[in-house]
Amino acid sequence: MTVKVGINGYGTVGKRVADAVAQQSDMEVVGVSKRSPTYEARLANELGYPFYAASKDHLDAFDEKGIEVQGMLYDLLAAADIIVDCTPKKAGYKPIYEKAGVKAMWQGGEKHSLTGLSFNSLANYDEAYGADYVRVVSCNTTGLLRTLYPIHTDIGIDRVNAVMIRRSADPWDTKRGPINSINPVLNIPSHHGPDVQSVVPEINIQTTAVKVPTTIMHLHSVIVDLKEDVDTEHILDLWERTPRVKFFEASQGVDSTAKIMEWAKDRGNVRGDINEIAVWKDGTQVEDGTLYYYQAIHQESDIVPENIDAIRAMMEMEEDNMKSIEKTNAGMGIE
Amino acid sequence: MTVKVGINGYGTVGKRVADAVAQQSDMEVVGVSKRSPTYEARLANELGYPFYAASKDHLDAFDEKGIEVQGMLYDLLAAADIIVDCTPKKAGYKPIYEKAGVKAMWQGGEKHSLTGLSFNSLANYDEAYGADYVRVVSCNTTGLLRTLYPIHTDIGIDRVNAVMIRRSADPWDTKRGPINSINPVLNIPSHHGPDVQSVVPEINIQTTAVKVPTTIMHLHSVIVDLKEDVDTEHILDLWERTPRVKFFEASQGVDSTAKIMEWAKDRGNVRGDINEIAVWKDGTQVEDGTLYYYQAIHQESDIVPENIDAIRAMMEMEEDNMKSIEKTNAGMGIE
Amino acid sequence: MTVKVGINGYGTVGKRVADAVAQQSDMEVVGVSKRSPTYEARLANELGYPFYAASKDHLDAFDEKGIEVQGMLYDLLAAADIIVDCTPKKAGYKPIYEKAGVKAMWQGGEKHSLTGLSFNSLANYDEAYGADYVRVVSCNTTGLLRTLYPIHTDIGIDRVNAVMIRRSADPWDTKRGPINSINPVLNIPSHHGPDVQSVVPEINIQTTAVKVPTTIMHLHSVIVDLKEDVDTEHILDLWERTPRVKFFEASQGVDSTAKIMEWAKDRGNVRGDINEIAVWKDGTQVEDGTLYYYQAIHQESDIVPENIDAIRAMMEMEEDNMKSIEKTNAGMGIE
Amino acid sequence: MTVKVGINGYGTVGKRVADAVAQQSDMEVVGVSKRSPTYEARLANELGYPFYAASKDHLDAFDEKGIEVQGMLYDLLAAADIIVDCTPKKAGYKPIYEKAGVKAMWQGGEKHSLTGLSFNSLANYDEAYGADYVRVVSCNTTGLLRTLYPIHTDIGIDRVNAVMIRRSADPWDTKRGPINSINPVLNIPSHHGPDVQSVVPEINIQTTAVKVPTTIMHLHSVIVDLKEDVDTEHILDLWERTPRVKFFEASQGVDSTAKIMEWAKDRGNVRGDINEIAVWKDGTQVEDGTLYYYQAIHQESDIVPENIDAIRAMMEMEEDNMKSIEKTNAGMGIE
Repeated sequence: MTVKVGINGYGTVGKRVADAVAQQSDMEVVGVSKRSPTYEARLANELGYPFYAASKDHLDAFDEKGIEVQGMLYDLLAAADIIVDCTPKKAGYKPIYEKAGVKAMWQGGEKHSLTGLSFNSLANYDEAYGADYVRVVSCNTTGLLRTLYPIHTDIGIDRVNAVMIRRSADPWDTKRGPINSINPVLNIPSHHGPDVQSVVPEINIQTTAVKVPTTIMHLHSVIVDLKEDVDTEHILDLWERTPRVKFFEASQGVDSTAKIMEWAKDRGNVRGDINEIAVWKDGTQVEDGTLYYYQAIHQESDIVPENIDAIRAMMEMEEDNMKSIEKTNAGMGIE
Repeated sequence: MTVKVGINGYGTVGKRVADAVAQQSDMEVVGVSKRSPTYEARLANELGYPFYAASKDHLDAFDEKGIEVQGMLYDLLAAADIIVDCTPKKAGYKPIYEKAGVKAMWQGGEKHSLTGLSFNSLANYDEAYGADYVRVVSCNTTGLLRTLYPIHTDIGIDRVNAVMIRRSADPWDTKRGPINSINPVLNIPSHHGPDVQSVVPEINIQTTAVKVPTTIMHLHSVIVDLKEDVDTEHILDLWERTPRVKFFEASQGVDSTAKIMEWAKDRGNVRGDINEIAVWKDGTQVEDGTLYYYQAIHQESDIVPENIDAIRAMMEMEEDNMKSIEKTNAGMGIE
Repeated sequence: MTVKVGINGYGTVGKRVADAVAQQSDMEVVGVSKRSPTYEARLANELGYPFYAASKDHLDAFDEKGIEVQGMLYDLLAAADIIVDCTPKKAGYKPIYEKAGVKAMWQGGEKHSLTGLSFNSLANYDEAYGADYVRVVSCNTTGLLRTLYPIHTDIGIDRVNAVMIRRSADPWDTKRGPINSINPVLNIPSHHGPDVQSVVPEINIQTTAVKVPTTIMHLHSVIVDLKEDVDTEHILDLWERTPRVKFFEASQGVDSTAKIMEWAKDRGNVRGDINEIAVWKDGTQVEDGTLYYYQAIHQESDIVPENIDAIRAMMEMEEDNMKSIEKTNAGMGIE
Repeated sequence: MTVKVGINGYGTVGKRVADAVAQQSDMEVVGVSKRSPTYEARLANELGYPFYAASKDHLDAFDEKGIEVQGMLYDLLAAADIIVDCTPKKAGYKPIYEKAGVKAMWQGGEKHSLTGLSFNSLANYDEAYGADYVRVVSCNTTGLLRTLYPIHTDIGIDRVNAVMIRRSADPWDTKRGPINSINPVLNIPSHHGPDVQSVVPEINIQTTAVKVPTTIMHLHSVIVDLKEDVDTEHILDLWERTPRVKFFEASQGVDSTAKIMEWAKDRGNVRGDINEIAVWKDGTQVEDGTLYYYQAIHQESDIVPENIDAIRAMMEMEEDNMKSIEKTNAGMGIE
């Protein structure tokens, strides 16, 4: 028996989650939903995902463009065991899901308070087991948790300072700038630190952030005061054993976010995505008990496998988080 | 019996040509060659392409990085029926190929005079039939020929003025700028016009060019004085029947080079490439016998199918250019 | 006696027009007006321009930030002989000016129909003589008229095709993108051609346009079919004698919009502006009766001297357009 | 009596230092020197700076372009009391200056070991007093010293972690990229920390750095563990009294490097430069004894006043660093 997954919001994240669900043997896409008749609605048709209209406003337009509409959003809610909400932040669908009596999960654009449960596969899978409403944390927070959580449990962390150098727009988003500026996020510390703590409250972390004119990946410069003075090799070994963390080396020509993207294309990754957190092996160093490292985050896709794991936890399909991670990775082609 | 293809230069174009050759039933990759031990050399290993070192200088480095080396470039030349040269322009390998007695083809960075034969699948496949040395014209020239040649033969052209708005660097190339500038190519007219004429001398075309700070596609604004005053629909019908020309519509949300790239990723195209020339249906218009249109060119991949066709022509594998085009397209997954 | 000029809208254009008015001996700034209490309102205070609030909504905020407010917009209208409207397009102040009985001029963001009179200093100064309402055409249209009008009168033009490669945002505008895309303007031909004709209907011109990720200057690639086959030198001589057209040469290192901006800074131009249209001498060429050239347009400042001339015409301060141009240029430090 | 200053290298830094020297009452520009006949050589002529050729190779070219050449570099060395070397790094002129018996100072591209004395006006003016050879530290190091040194002396610093988000090219530099990438500097910690310590060895500082696709300013995210837990106001007061540190506020619309540049243009700063370090008042915060702040660095001009002070120290023109700073600032129009 496979779990029936509906996806509300078929854009940057929704289309990726749909494909990832379809790649798993224990779940299926019963439908995707979207408001406007862009080419992505047609894409859903082509990929064989039943398409549901999120609003009556554009029904004529779907018809005009020859996009086959299976029904309305409430039909999808009725057909699904669980909804992955990939709509823009604050879209406000929770009461609708509650009324339909369907489980639901959201993305990191929403606040922790929406669900009271923020999720990371490695850190708190158990908490989400059987839960009705879960928030998968943002791409940046997911990235921080993937590399910090094993250090937290294995070595212990006194303090983390992370500076997030953020891409300003997704590749397809031609409206947003800046074109030639660095924009600091002047709320200090930035919201990313508390967001990490919404999953693991014990990690002492402060973050700052700036926006820069790129479209392809966020980059973090992270400084960790360790509880114990281990050597660099110890940290690298730890990450070697951590799922969804992948090493790159400048000495092999991969010395920028652009080169990581090229690698992902060359590897044949769908959409050129990289679901892993990219850590530079030759940019990692421990000095006097302080760890310095850089990591790059593919903002459109690192949270996709976390969404799959969250489905498994919420639907009580698999008790062990490591087994879910393994299944998800195998289905998605993550090493 | 399959034709044995060697690729000298395993970079942006070389890696794409290798994959395209591997997708054809009537040819195979007998090896690829490269000078330096970047991750792309390892990629060749992983994909099962026999790897040959283009220079003795880096043999130790290949060894050190665990990249399996099958032999030297001359070994590859001996093993191959034909070499696709994808080395940087003016690399100067022609005498070496001549000495080895192997057929060879080059990319558009080289001058017409190197081979005396510049190639486009649609326009002059016959000329390349059985030829020993051929140059496949550049991405921009290929783009111009794909849309202009059918107009030239079907309607007739009085004059073409094309302005090429060129991306300044490939996505992986983090060295090249500009970051915030428009750089005009002050040699007027630019070399693209004569390059079109190196394939079809009868087309009266002048071009100018500017470089802009993007990495993803060239864009052409083309103005064609037609010999006959047809309507816009006539032109669109013509292109509808032309291989490797694909329509996009702003009304479906595809209103920029960035959105075309997104479409290509969503379609599942390998590396997010688009081998077709992208023409905006709602940006095409005939007024008083003058045709205006915009087209976008994926600089890294539009010439790849042309390379495959050129192999077939030079090796006398297929007499009819339309049949070769069809075979190539089927193998590569081009509609 | 000096003419009293009020400026409504103290942003990108307004602050430049204010300074240019202040530099003229026959006019003075009686006040500037703005809605919101940004640092630019303070700047007006510091420069000694009486400041008027455009709306009551922010009066407290002005007070809080210590910005001295002289009165409201209607006070400014009463004090001024003429208003230069530099508010965002479609702000809709015309009825207010009419009611106040004050002359007014607008910028090129507005439609021709607003005033029925579109202005360029060289081409139709006489038409604006004594007029109550005038629109100074946009930066791009002004640029086209500066170089085309002398050719139109001296040689005659059969047809112009111009491609405008447009910067996407002003340098201070950090909201607008794209970051990595070329966006064609799919309405063909673009509005720039008809806009030229709103000043000189006899010029046969079609234009297309694309937006690119730069902030500093527009660039035009212009192709002119001449009525007479003159040589390149003839064209250069003509422009040499044309005010507000300035030559640059790649052979002296000025081969991009970025280098022109650097030149303007080095020359000591206020704000690094360049009020002239920049034409590449070594990018200009006549071939078989067709003229090819590139020009660059400083979007924030080329229309400023035109605003000054329009004031003189509307206020009947000077009958001869060339004399006004000379006065304006002398005051503003334009060669 | 005025000190005679020669400038070797009349590019980005050299042209600014020349103008700053000319603005001081106690020093004069006896000449500037450059290798190639770009428009900047002509600029020197126009500004009345005697021009000397740095190499015989281009003498004809200077002549051809009508650039007046006063003599060769060694003539300039003979005429000057002190040389400000603004040539590209590792240009290697030291032996030539030694042979000519002229004092000389270099910029931050050079290593500390070249002079054994690295300079900052605030921190170690005395050490440079009477010295023959001095290195003015880089724009980034100058920026760090301006804000850290007063904290070091007033409060005491346990540790500094600074992440430098660096612009990748100067505005005029159209060759350098990246266009769409973030490039981490993988040498950890980066050289900026030790460079700060070349002036003030007692400051415990580690730095990391990334390059981003902008041209206009560097931005630092700085975290300082203070020896004493003061409040935010204390820090702001301290910087208020520190020369060449200037506050900006997002609440007044200045929330990015682009807006700072706009402010500098509006203020009428020559070339739109800003010699001060820009600190965001509303981006500064002390939490539990840790100070967080952002600062922006105008890479082309913050070191210019430091060059002037270094001349005064080396030539023993003024014993008190604060008096030199005041004189320099007054001459250059720094508040």
